[in-house]
Amino acid sequence: MIAREPEVLLDEARHGSRTALARLLTYVEAGADQHRATAALVYRARAPYVVGLTGPPGVGKSTLTDRLIAVALKKGQVGGAETFDQVGVLCVDPSSPFSGGAILGDRIRMQDHATDDHVFIRSMATRGHLGGLSLAVPDALRVLGAANFPFAFVETVGVGQMEVEIASAADTTVVVTNPGWGDSMQTSKAGLLEIADIFVINKADRPGVRETRRDLEQMLNLGGQPAWRPMIIETSATLDEGTETLFDAIGEHRDFLDDERLFEARRLRTRAELDKVVNFLVSSRVTALAKGEVYEAQVDALLECSTDPYRAAETLLGEP
Amino acid sequence: MIAREPEVLLDEARHGSRTALARLLTYVEAGADQHRATAALVYRARAPYVVGLTGPPGVGKSTLTDRLIAVALKKGQVGGAETFDQVGVLCVDPSSPFSGGAILGDRIRMQDHATDDHVFIRSMATRGHLGGLSLAVPDALRVLGAANFPFAFVETVGVGQMEVEIASAADTTVVVTNPGWGDSMQTSKAGLLEIADIFVINKADRPGVRETRRDLEQMLNLGGQPAWRPMIIETSATLDEGTETLFDAIGEHRDFLDDERLFEARRLRTRAELDKVVNFLVSSRVTALAKGEVYEAQVDALLECSTDPYRAAETLLGEP
Repeated sequence: MIAREPEVLLDEARHGSRTALARLLTYVEAGADQHRATAALVYRARAPYVVGLTGPPGVGKSTLTDRLIAVALKKGQVGGAETFDQVGVLCVDPSSPFSGGAILGDRIRMQDHATDDHVFIRSMATRGHLGGLSLAVPDALRVLGAANFPFAFVETVGVGQMEVEIASAADTTVVVTNPGWGDSMQTSKAGLLEIADIFVINKADRPGVRETRRDLEQMLNLGGQPAWRPMIIETSATLDEGTETLFDAIGEHRDFLDDERLFEARRLRTRAELDKVVNFLVSSRVTALAKGEVYEAQVDALLECSTDPYRAAETLLGEP
Repeated sequence: MIAREPEVLLDEARHGSRTALARLLTYVEAGADQHRATAALVYRARAPYVVGLTGPPGVGKSTLTDRLIAVALKKGQVGGAETFDQVGVLCVDPSSPFSGGAILGDRIRMQDHATDDHVFIRSMATRGHLGGLSLAVPDALRVLGAANFPFAFVETVGVGQMEVEIASAADTTVVVTNPGWGDSMQTSKAGLLEIADIFVINKADRPGVRETRRDLEQMLNLGGQPAWRPMIIETSATLDEGTETLFDAIGEHRDFLDDERLFEARRLRTRAELDKVVNFLVSSRVTALAKGEVYEAQVDALLECSTDPYRAAETLLGEP
C-alpha cells in the first residue's frame, strides 16, 4: 500500500471521503512519518468546538454520547455558534496500552450511527509511543476540524491522569456519573471536580439521585464562586431522557465562552500542548543519543548501586 | 519547620523511627530539594523485593492487601528469600491528580495494621509535577529498602496506563479481578494480561468463577509458552479464603526468579527508570529555558494558525 500525501487526502476528506479522513487519523495515531505533514496541514485550519465526555467505566458514556450525537444532528447548532450538519466522534481508551486496536465495545454500541453519513466515529488506542494519546488526540481533533467538522465529541474511558488530561482538553467538559457516585470513599472524583463544566448523573431512573446531586453541590460549594458554576444534569440515556436538556446545557456553556474566554482557555491549552510536544521531541532526541556505551555504563552503575538515576541522568546529559 | 538532613533521617529510619521514614517519603513525593539527596542515599542500598497489586476499582485490592500483610508477617519469608519481620506498603492512586492528599479510603480500610509496629503503610498521590508518581514510586520503594524493609507491597488503584506502569515495576505483579471480569467488552484487560505474574479472582464466593478462570486461561493460551505462565488464584479476601495460597504463589514466583532472571528483569526496569529520569530532567531544563519571549511568540503563532506544535517545538529547540 502506497502512503498517500496528506494534502491529497485532506482535500478528499473535505469533500466527504471518509476513507481519506480515516487514513489521516491513522497517520496521526501511528505517529509515523506522515503524522508531521498532517499536523502541519491541519493546524492551519480552524479547530472544531470540542465537547469532552469522561467518567468511570460502566456509567453509560457510550449510550449517552450516542444520544447526544442524535440531538446534535437534530439541532445542528450548539448554543449560538455556527451551524453544522455532521458530527465527529473520537472514542479514546488509554487503558489499552498494549492493544493497538480500536475499542470494540464502543464500536458495537455506537453502531446505530456507524452507517450514518452525518456521523464519523473513530476509536483511538495508544500505539505505545511516548506521549501517545495525549499527543495524538489534539492532532486528531484538528484533523476533524480541517475536514469540515466544526463540532466534535471526544469520549474517554476511565478516570486516570491521562483520561482527565484528554477530557479536559475540550472546550466543554462533561463528567458522567451515576447515582451513588458521591460516596465518600470515591476519592477519584476529586480530579474530575476540577475539570467538569457539566456534571451528568446518568441512570437517573435509579435510586440515589438526590443524594448524589446534594454531594456534588456540596463539593462545588467548596470551590468558591467561579465565573462558571458547573451545571448538574440528570439523564437516563437508555430511556433517552434528559439528553436534550444536557445538549442545551452544553450550548449554555458554549455561549458563556465569549470570544475572550474561549481565546484565553485555548491559549492555556495551546501552551500545555506545545510543552508536551517540546518534551516529546526532546525525549526522542535524548533516547536516540543515549543508546550507547555511556548509557550502558550508567545502567550498570545503577545495578551495582554505585549511583542513583538522577546522577546517572545528569552524567548522560552533561551540566545544564 | 526545619528541613532535616536525609542522612540523619535515614539513620533514624533504619533504627525504627517511623516519623523519620515518613519524612523521607514526603521528600520523595514532593519532588523537593531533599528529594535528590534522598535518592542519592537510598539507591546505594539494596532494593526491596516488591510485590505489585493492581486491578480496577472495587475488586477488593485493599482488603486483599490487608490479608496478605498478615500472612507475610506470619510467614516472615517469601519463597526461599531472606526473612523479614516488617512489611512496607505503598498505596498509590494516580486518579487523584489534583488532590495532593492521601487515599483516605485505603487508610481507613487498612487501619487494622495502622498501629502495628511491623507494618508501615503509606498512601501516595501525585503532586502534579511532571513524571509524578511514576518517578516517585520507585524512589519511595528504594527508601523502604534502605530503611531495612526487605519486602514491600505496592497497591495501585485503577487500570490506566500509569497504573499499569507502576504495578508492572514490581518483581512480582498480581492483577486482581472478580468473577465476571472475562466479559469480552472489558478490553482493558488486554494491558493487564501482559504484566500479570499472578491473576487473582477475588470475591470467588460469587458466581462466575469458573467462566472467568476459563476466559483467563484462554487468553493466556494465546500468549504462547513463556518461561513463567501466570498462575490463577481464587480468593475471597473478606472471608480470608485463599490468601495463604496466594502468598505461596507469590513465593513460587519469587523462587522462579533465580539470580539471573531477577537481574535481567531489574536491568530492564532500571533502563526504563533511567529513561524516565532523563526525560524528566530534560523537560525541566527545557521548560525553564522556554518561558520567554520566543516561547510566547510560538504560542501566538499557534493561536493564529500560522504554525503547528511540532514546527513550533523545533523552532524552540533548534535543529537536532
